[in-house]
Amino acid sequence: MIDASLIAGISATVVSFVVGYTIAKLPRPGAGSTGSSENQSSTDEGTDKMFADMGGEYKMVLVVRNDLKMGKGKIAAQCGHAAVGAFESGLHNTPKAIRKWQNSGQAKIALKVESEVALMEIYRSAKANKLNCCMIRDAGRTQIEPNTKTVLAVGPAPVVAVDSVTGHLKLL
Amino acid sequence: MIDASLIAGISATVVSFVVGYTIAKLPRPGAGSTGSSENQSSTDEGTDKMFADMGGEYKMVLVVRNDLKMGKGKIAAQCGHAAVGAFESGLHNTPKAIRKWQNSGQAKIALKVESEVALMEIYRSAKANKLNCCMIRDAGRTQIEPNTKTVLAVGPAPVVAVDSVTGHLKLL
Repeated sequence: MIDASLIAGISATVVSFVVGYTIAKLPRPGAGSTGSSENQSSTDEGTDKMFADMGGEYKMVLVVRNDLKMGKGKIAAQCGHAAVGAFESGLHNTPKAIRKWQNSGQAKIALKVESEVALMEIYRSAKANKLNCCMIRDAGRTQIEPNTKTVLAVGPAPVVAVDSVTGHLKLL
Repeated sequence: MIDASLIAGISATVVSFVVGYTIAKLPRPGAGSTGSSENQSSTDEGTDKMFADMGGEYKMVLVVRNDLKMGKGKIAAQCGHAAVGAFESGLHNTPKAIRKWQNSGQAKIALKVESEVALMEIYRSAKANKLNCCMIRDAGRTQIEPNTKTVLAVGPAPVVAVDSVTGHLKLL
């Protein structure tokens, strides 16, 4: 005959394993914030799945303000900020799309806009289309005024989705 | 009087929670590889702790080959690759240093070298000093030959450690 407390013990053991595993897998709030960037913060599994299912090529676009006349070193650093910021928020918001982008060569394309107004238009359009994105404001230690918006990263996402908001822009 | 099977049940429950938690936290092999970059792949806790304990400011340096005469859009994309690659390998190799760098503004500086030989010298020196780094080879679809080494990211690491291998280079 099986002891009732043995059954209870086994049940508790199994439940405990599952609880421990689940707790460990919970996303940590706060991990991944950066001082100077604005990311979309809500995980959107529906959007992620849709982007992952769209197939085709994936890319990340770096939209650079050309009117600021930044030197190429400054552009390089700002694009580094934007790419890392979008990668990090993408890991949280659209992990499936990030994985597909990584497996297809991590394409990155730099495009240009000629004003802050044009940059903000792309930003609003990207958010309206649920695209992962990251806006960089410069700390203003060199070359430009503090808090100037310099670069917007859009994606990684399917090329067709990114092109729907940045397709009209020219290469930097 | 306490039943022996009750004690066993409770013990098994606790152990099971810990095992479940630990299994969930195990690093997944294969996550984080990229096609076109070469990262240092071994986690080095001693180095990470040393870098985290050094204090002061942290930075990531992007060493760009100036002799290739890449356009600024090309430089922007290549530096995006390098920054994301170094960030990703840093999350695995030197997570404490990454956290300190993120909390101090994620400084990124673009420097230049004038040849592949000079770039490789920095790369070997960075590896010898156990610095996290990421070398980018271009896929060669635009502007330059396939497999050309274009940008090397060094860090994120304490400024003094990064400067020990890149301090003699000029700003891009």
